[in-house]
Amino acid sequence: MVLGPVKLVFRSFQTRNASNVSFIGIGQMGSRMVKNLLKKGQEVKVFDVVPAAASSVPGARVCNSAAEAAKDADIVITMLPTGDDVKHTLTQKQGILEGIPKKSLFIDCSTIEPKMAQELHRISTENGVRYIDAPLSGGVTGAENGTLTFMVGGADGDLKEAEPVLNKMGAKVFKCGDIGAGQIAKLCNNLILGITMIGTCEAMNLGIKLGLDPKVLTNIVNVSTGRSWSSDTYNPVPGIMPNVPSSKGYEGGFSVPLIAKDLYLAQAAALSCGTPLLLGALAHQIYRTLILQGYGDKDFAVVYEYLKGQSKNQ
Amino acid sequence: MVLGPVKLVFRSFQTRNASNVSFIGIGQMGSRMVKNLLKKGQEVKVFDVVPAAASSVPGARVCNSAAEAAKDADIVITMLPTGDDVKHTLTQKQGILEGIPKKSLFIDCSTIEPKMAQELHRISTENGVRYIDAPLSGGVTGAENGTLTFMVGGADGDLKEAEPVLNKMGAKVFKCGDIGAGQIAKLCNNLILGITMIGTCEAMNLGIKLGLDPKVLTNIVNVSTGRSWSSDTYNPVPGIMPNVPSSKGYEGGFSVPLIAKDLYLAQAAALSCGTPLLLGALAHQIYRTLILQGYGDKDFAVVYEYLKGQSKNQ
Amino acid sequence: MVLGPVKLVFRSFQTRNASNVSFIGIGQMGSRMVKNLLKKGQEVKVFDVVPAAASSVPGARVCNSAAEAAKDADIVITMLPTGDDVKHTLTQKQGILEGIPKKSLFIDCSTIEPKMAQELHRISTENGVRYIDAPLSGGVTGAENGTLTFMVGGADGDLKEAEPVLNKMGAKVFKCGDIGAGQIAKLCNNLILGITMIGTCEAMNLGIKLGLDPKVLTNIVNVSTGRSWSSDTYNPVPGIMPNVPSSKGYEGGFSVPLIAKDLYLAQAAALSCGTPLLLGALAHQIYRTLILQGYGDKDFAVVYEYLKGQSKNQ
Amino acid sequence: MVLGPVKLVFRSFQTRNASNVSFIGIGQMGSRMVKNLLKKGQEVKVFDVVPAAASSVPGARVCNSAAEAAKDADIVITMLPTGDDVKHTLTQKQGILEGIPKKSLFIDCSTIEPKMAQELHRISTENGVRYIDAPLSGGVTGAENGTLTFMVGGADGDLKEAEPVLNKMGAKVFKCGDIGAGQIAKLCNNLILGITMIGTCEAMNLGIKLGLDPKVLTNIVNVSTGRSWSSDTYNPVPGIMPNVPSSKGYEGGFSVPLIAKDLYLAQAAALSCGTPLLLGALAHQIYRTLILQGYGDKDFAVVYEYLKGQSKNQ
Repeated sequence: MVLGPVKLVFRSFQTRNASNVSFIGIGQMGSRMVKNLLKKGQEVKVFDVVPAAASSVPGARVCNSAAEAAKDADIVITMLPTGDDVKHTLTQKQGILEGIPKKSLFIDCSTIEPKMAQELHRISTENGVRYIDAPLSGGVTGAENGTLTFMVGGADGDLKEAEPVLNKMGAKVFKCGDIGAGQIAKLCNNLILGITMIGTCEAMNLGIKLGLDPKVLTNIVNVSTGRSWSSDTYNPVPGIMPNVPSSKGYEGGFSVPLIAKDLYLAQAAALSCGTPLLLGALAHQIYRTLILQGYGDKDFAVVYEYLKGQSKNQ
Repeated sequence: MVLGPVKLVFRSFQTRNASNVSFIGIGQMGSRMVKNLLKKGQEVKVFDVVPAAASSVPGARVCNSAAEAAKDADIVITMLPTGDDVKHTLTQKQGILEGIPKKSLFIDCSTIEPKMAQELHRISTENGVRYIDAPLSGGVTGAENGTLTFMVGGADGDLKEAEPVLNKMGAKVFKCGDIGAGQIAKLCNNLILGITMIGTCEAMNLGIKLGLDPKVLTNIVNVSTGRSWSSDTYNPVPGIMPNVPSSKGYEGGFSVPLIAKDLYLAQAAALSCGTPLLLGALAHQIYRTLILQGYGDKDFAVVYEYLKGQSKNQ
Repeated sequence: MVLGPVKLVFRSFQTRNASNVSFIGIGQMGSRMVKNLLKKGQEVKVFDVVPAAASSVPGARVCNSAAEAAKDADIVITMLPTGDDVKHTLTQKQGILEGIPKKSLFIDCSTIEPKMAQELHRISTENGVRYIDAPLSGGVTGAENGTLTFMVGGADGDLKEAEPVLNKMGAKVFKCGDIGAGQIAKLCNNLILGITMIGTCEAMNLGIKLGLDPKVLTNIVNVSTGRSWSSDTYNPVPGIMPNVPSSKGYEGGFSVPLIAKDLYLAQAAALSCGTPLLLGALAHQIYRTLILQGYGDKDFAVVYEYLKGQSKNQ
Repeated sequence: MVLGPVKLVFRSFQTRNASNVSFIGIGQMGSRMVKNLLKKGQEVKVFDVVPAAASSVPGARVCNSAAEAAKDADIVITMLPTGDDVKHTLTQKQGILEGIPKKSLFIDCSTIEPKMAQELHRISTENGVRYIDAPLSGGVTGAENGTLTFMVGGADGDLKEAEPVLNKMGAKVFKCGDIGAGQIAKLCNNLILGITMIGTCEAMNLGIKLGLDPKVLTNIVNVSTGRSWSSDTYNPVPGIMPNVPSSKGYEGGFSVPLIAKDLYLAQAAALSCGTPLLLGALAHQIYRTLILQGYGDKDFAVVYEYLKGQSKNQ
């Protein structure tokens, strides 16, 4: 394959440590990402609004505020639920801006609106701080194993500086374009994912109800035009693949509310540029219906179980 | 069912010719399939309701009726637009049943309702004829190059007998299960395809409108969870891949009415077993809307152009 | 209102009885319709494939076959589940055609495909029998109270003859056009109904979750542009109106599988003329999803309860 | 809440004038609303960011800033495109808050997010100003004729004070509940409207393509369960009703971008409370698709023309 206009994938094997790295947001994802930083020899100062969370990673230096964590940092990383959380953590009293040195690099790994990424960039720049957006994919498993994929938007020099640190937590770093481009790429990818998964569930359910062997159908699809990650790597039908959530009661994996959140962000972004998302809008609603029907703590492939239904009568 | 995930694809290299093969339905697909049979040394008797079509393949022996073509045939193959066409060709006056010898094999390669396949099987059996359904994928290009994929339903012995002939026209033969299973597998695969293509178009369009480079986005998606045949083999955005319809004005390829037909058949099959197809139903309507908006002669990836829109203002 | 090209609504007050009326299909609807015929002084011969059903109406003369019921009849009425049932009852051994006198009138009140109505008309005509399609709305309550609405397609003379009999079972008779037009009108009306009901449920649910008083919201909608039969006559929120299914546990009324059937027939009709039904297709799938989620025996307004959800968490 | 189903509509015939009324936002709607205020003897000070707009209403006193207009006002009314516009006009330099006297009443007639209404209320209250939300329906025609419907949220005393002024511009005032309730009621109503209109267009198009006379079908629907404002007052098929946009080339009326905006606000509100809007989401996307297909300056009933299609082939 001929790669695009810029050299797309670049994995650095530099091992030089940024002298000071801070990490804010020590939840399911953040705690595992910090563990990998520590494992690779990178010292880390951490902060979380929940003190117990901040103290959960042995070896990390716990701080009492975002400002304290950001103090003297060369790089400050955030991993937070929403764009508003990031903005708040940046600008509030005792927030990042009160501690972070001029010219340091702020890397936001949260999944947020592309427009908010641009706003965070503006605020950072006005305060003499460099900013890149670096949302990731790979989930809790990827965070645990250090195999995350980062999709990064920002200036080339900043990406270069971020790369060694990101590579300690993940396996791939993609340069997507300017500020916000990382967020856009992630949303577009997850938009396809959310739709294709439901389509795969609908078709597998149909074939099985009509009497096909699920493994035979999967094998045909996987070498045909219906092939996708949803069928060949993360098949939603229990028992087809041994180590995916569908074969473990739809536990773990990528939860329904998380894909619903990404599809919402895609909708919001689509609104901002007048772009229709017909299947995207319906997929979004289907995931939200699932939450209301009690599937909110399951992996998103549980759409299959939902479509299979509870009763046999038509 | 005997076959499991591994033993699924079997390509025979037998070259023994069935002494007599007849082919009914000499259209865009049928004419190319017959050419490949002839090229591999298989003599073929042909019939089409349009005499000019029947005479279009040099070297084939043209007959004046389906009955005449079927006379003395070991294998009769049909490639027709609809299930009703096949039934009519089978049962009408001067139809296949009036010519075909007892115990011969009738292979229907048309894409039809699974239920109709079962009815054709019943009628054939009542008349002492063996029947299998063998719909195919690969389109005009696959027919031309002899690289079609056949999805076959029926008895093992019959499949074994069909295999050498199918292999002269295609590259893969899948055993899907009992009578009708070939049709079901094809519909399920194309259901995923029809949905995933629209999802890919929606996401590519969104990313591009938000400023991403289409090649960069494609490269990211193709190694991420949004990966599918629609993005990595048949990308709908002009200029990403050189030899796909999207890069040739959406000419050739898999036309919008054909995917619409398959999604309709999927709907009908879903109705018969009380299975919901939420995205499938909407995808079906989107393709039908495209036909009404004047895209009826384009490749189905033209959804991208449709979503891109005619005016810039929102 | 200025009425359309033909005099649309005509209610006859003629009381002359057709000497002989037969009724085939004595189910939930048929039994009540026969009772009203009897009540208005019309003698009726009845037949049902289930003998117990046929005997369930005191005063009707039970026959042992459709042919026997049709013998000597001036008018034969059918009220059956599907188009195939009607065709079978007409053409089978001991079917209507074996008994009905030439020139008698066959009135089919079943809801079936418009194309099937045309086929029944053709078969009837070939056998010297006159045919009209006269599907109805109003449900079990309308059948009980004799307030059904009939939508009739066929020749003017035949309609005129049918009218006095239909008026004994219903309150309104609409001439819709040629053969099949009654079916088409019914499907179009119920297509709007199925969509509008879901839209009303979505909006009522939204308003209530956001804190509005359901009665206040209903009152506003009912005098505004959101007004419809679904909100002002059959409100889906429990407690707004006293005597509708939503206020009685969604019992009785118009069941989910029945609206799903009508939306399916609308889809099939739309396919036949290449017309897209975007919301119609999705509405159809939503009702079918409800059946699978265990709402198959409830009134179709139960969509409100479904959307309200089982859990409170987002 | 005190109000029940009957006491809902209250139209005041008080004619006492608020001594000082100011109106900000003199566009298509605002200019007509001001004219009606003047016609009923109410003096008005006006402001618009476009000076030419502010000067367009003879008899109104033009001010140079929102602050100047608000000075000494008992009541300040805003009619602006978005919630952000209202907030800006309220809080900016030379904005309303710099001029409006303490305890005066701020009435926002714009259609905005319910949450923004609550924020505007908070800001107003913190500055000693009373606030109610009073979005309206009725469009340019209603503004012209003084027949608007206002849906009002806020404290009872404030509503009472607003009523005489609102009644000079409209025909109905609904109390919907607390702050934001006016916005919620409007969104819920327009959500039903947007869905029902498309459903009506789909069904009318289907019936007409199948051969029904559009007037006959309309007449049947309008006395049946498919009845709604979209069919009986604003029929989308040209030629059915003389004075609606569909009979005037879909000019005037309620433009596609405006219904798309309302459906977007409904989506955003639904997201905030985890409520699914399945048909609502799809309806939203359909209107946005129409904008892209070049229907952005037409009345929203133009969905009928879009579904009818450009080509006849299936």
